[in-house]
Amino acid sequence: MLYFCRMLEDKNQSKTALSSLGEFGLIEHLTTQFKINNKSTITGIGDDAAILNFKGESVVVTTDFLVEGVHFDLSYMPLKHLGYKAVVVNLSDVYAMNAKASQITVSIAVSNRFTLEAMEALYQGIQTAAKTYGVDVVGGDTTSSISGLTLSVSAIGHVKASKVVKRNGAKSNDLLVISGDIGAAYLGLQVLEREKEVFKVNPKNQPELERYSYIIERQLKPEARKDIVTLLNDLKVQPTSMIDISDGLSSEVIHLCKQSGVGCDLYEEKIPLDPQVISTCEEFNIDSTTIALSGGEDYELLMTISQADYPKIKGNPNLTVIGHMTEKASGIHLVTRAQEKIPLVAQGWNGFKS
Amino acid sequence: MLYFCRMLEDKNQSKTALSSLGEFGLIEHLTTQFKINNKSTITGIGDDAAILNFKGESVVVTTDFLVEGVHFDLSYMPLKHLGYKAVVVNLSDVYAMNAKASQITVSIAVSNRFTLEAMEALYQGIQTAAKTYGVDVVGGDTTSSISGLTLSVSAIGHVKASKVVKRNGAKSNDLLVISGDIGAAYLGLQVLEREKEVFKVNPKNQPELERYSYIIERQLKPEARKDIVTLLNDLKVQPTSMIDISDGLSSEVIHLCKQSGVGCDLYEEKIPLDPQVISTCEEFNIDSTTIALSGGEDYELLMTISQADYPKIKGNPNLTVIGHMTEKASGIHLVTRAQEKIPLVAQGWNGFKS
Repeated sequence: MLYFCRMLEDKNQSKTALSSLGEFGLIEHLTTQFKINNKSTITGIGDDAAILNFKGESVVVTTDFLVEGVHFDLSYMPLKHLGYKAVVVNLSDVYAMNAKASQITVSIAVSNRFTLEAMEALYQGIQTAAKTYGVDVVGGDTTSSISGLTLSVSAIGHVKASKVVKRNGAKSNDLLVISGDIGAAYLGLQVLEREKEVFKVNPKNQPELERYSYIIERQLKPEARKDIVTLLNDLKVQPTSMIDISDGLSSEVIHLCKQSGVGCDLYEEKIPLDPQVISTCEEFNIDSTTIALSGGEDYELLMTISQADYPKIKGNPNLTVIGHMTEKASGIHLVTRAQEKIPLVAQGWNGFKS
Repeated sequence: MLYFCRMLEDKNQSKTALSSLGEFGLIEHLTTQFKINNKSTITGIGDDAAILNFKGESVVVTTDFLVEGVHFDLSYMPLKHLGYKAVVVNLSDVYAMNAKASQITVSIAVSNRFTLEAMEALYQGIQTAAKTYGVDVVGGDTTSSISGLTLSVSAIGHVKASKVVKRNGAKSNDLLVISGDIGAAYLGLQVLEREKEVFKVNPKNQPELERYSYIIERQLKPEARKDIVTLLNDLKVQPTSMIDISDGLSSEVIHLCKQSGVGCDLYEEKIPLDPQVISTCEEFNIDSTTIALSGGEDYELLMTISQADYPKIKGNPNLTVIGHMTEKASGIHLVTRAQEKIPLVAQGWNGFKS
């Protein structure tokens, strides 16, 4: 009785479209009431990964959903690469906690449009990533879906409790440091989307993608910066805050600032770009800084370090200082090449807006 | 170049339908090559949950996918109940390891057919379950989907390493013990399916479901047996093997037998059934033993205990001895009320067969 009434009741309820909140807004809205009670829970929602504590060891846990048609397009994403990428994006969150990734679980929901051979290709990619990063696949769920392919990957890592790095430790005057270069993955996607359109019109056309090899590779087969966690440990640098760049540099800088209660000056001229990103931006007639700030899917690490640690990272080709943190009241700014200060705005990807 | 070739190549590949393997077959097929390398991984795929070890504490991790149209039907499953159930089915796997559940992560992929109010109802159910079972919601991912609602829930628990119970420890002569009663959830689903058809024809019809209250509750709002883990601890009973009943009693008995390398005699007359299950089976003209063996979604615990522990559980209303383990060569049998021995066959639910 109880149960069937809802069908009738539904009509009287107020309705708010999900798109009005966006992805972050929705998570925040739905989870604000969640309180933490277990003593093994150190931090819950709000960082790259949750932190649990078991006998002095911090265990970090993170999870990601990858939905066909939203996060990937199988017309240019081979399943093997998809499997690899699904693992990498999760490990990236573990490394952003300064932790060692040790286990993953992989769940898939798949429609009968897919064959066993397709699933084997997907798992081959998962296995390759697991091997490359030295993690064990310890579980998962496999089920059918009504349409399409959905993956849910969780990753577990661990680190001595005193070494874990959260988003909220940045101090005014800390240096803002980034690994690698950014903007490439987003541009790679633009090239693939363009070629897909060409392919639709003329399937016999063999696209020449050689000169986009780096940016396409960054889109289809990204890597997580396990090496940076090792490097920081070797250099004896303990970042004061850290986050991985999945939604775009602006969005991540703002996360660090808001959660640490500081401001930031980010220097446009310091942002590391690959030459292929610069040339492709020229070809597409788009501003490379916009791509770097808002592109996303870079899976580089963005961190803040104490000025005292600067000599340890100076000249290291893997790390670039791109700005410094300021007092909260100073705000969050991009300092342009023309030395203009403009407020930084998050243009991170919103999965509910399409 | 690399990437677009696959569209052409695909045509030459051999194709095997996923339905030919079934859900268990697919997981097994895809994961057989996965080796365990990290010293913090104790067991991976193949139990209710993976077991990790951090400084002498066993940390168990389990994950489940719930897909609209496959695992639930929103025409009779209120979102609040769905949220509750999604948590419970995962906690059940943690308790099946004899562990204390402490954290969960909840990821949802949702189409814009859903409103914010609908998501709030879903999360209200999640929160109620988290509160009831004393677990913290520590993370998750929220994203859009092309169609429908998909949930992926992971649960984390912990227990002293010496107390963890796996599926592979049953010995010949051990007693087979079950908590609660079974078959109700599956029958509840049959009632709801029938009423849905009636509702389609006549939406103004108010179904009288009072006399099915127990079996409908077991389907829509199942509970996980946290209390049994506490009870076993209080009684100082350490099961030799344990599993939760999600796919049906037959299927779970076979799992315990195969993984422990033993046989089993299961007594039909001992299987605990609620009176509402018996009366509804009569009404639907189906055999109650068939329902108990193959229904599934009971979320009771099935365990084996040493005969020496029998006095500790004797007469306890929460636990029923339903059989005993035998040598492997004796096989796995149901002993009917007529004292006939028939081989037990797994009729567990196969998500790929529909």
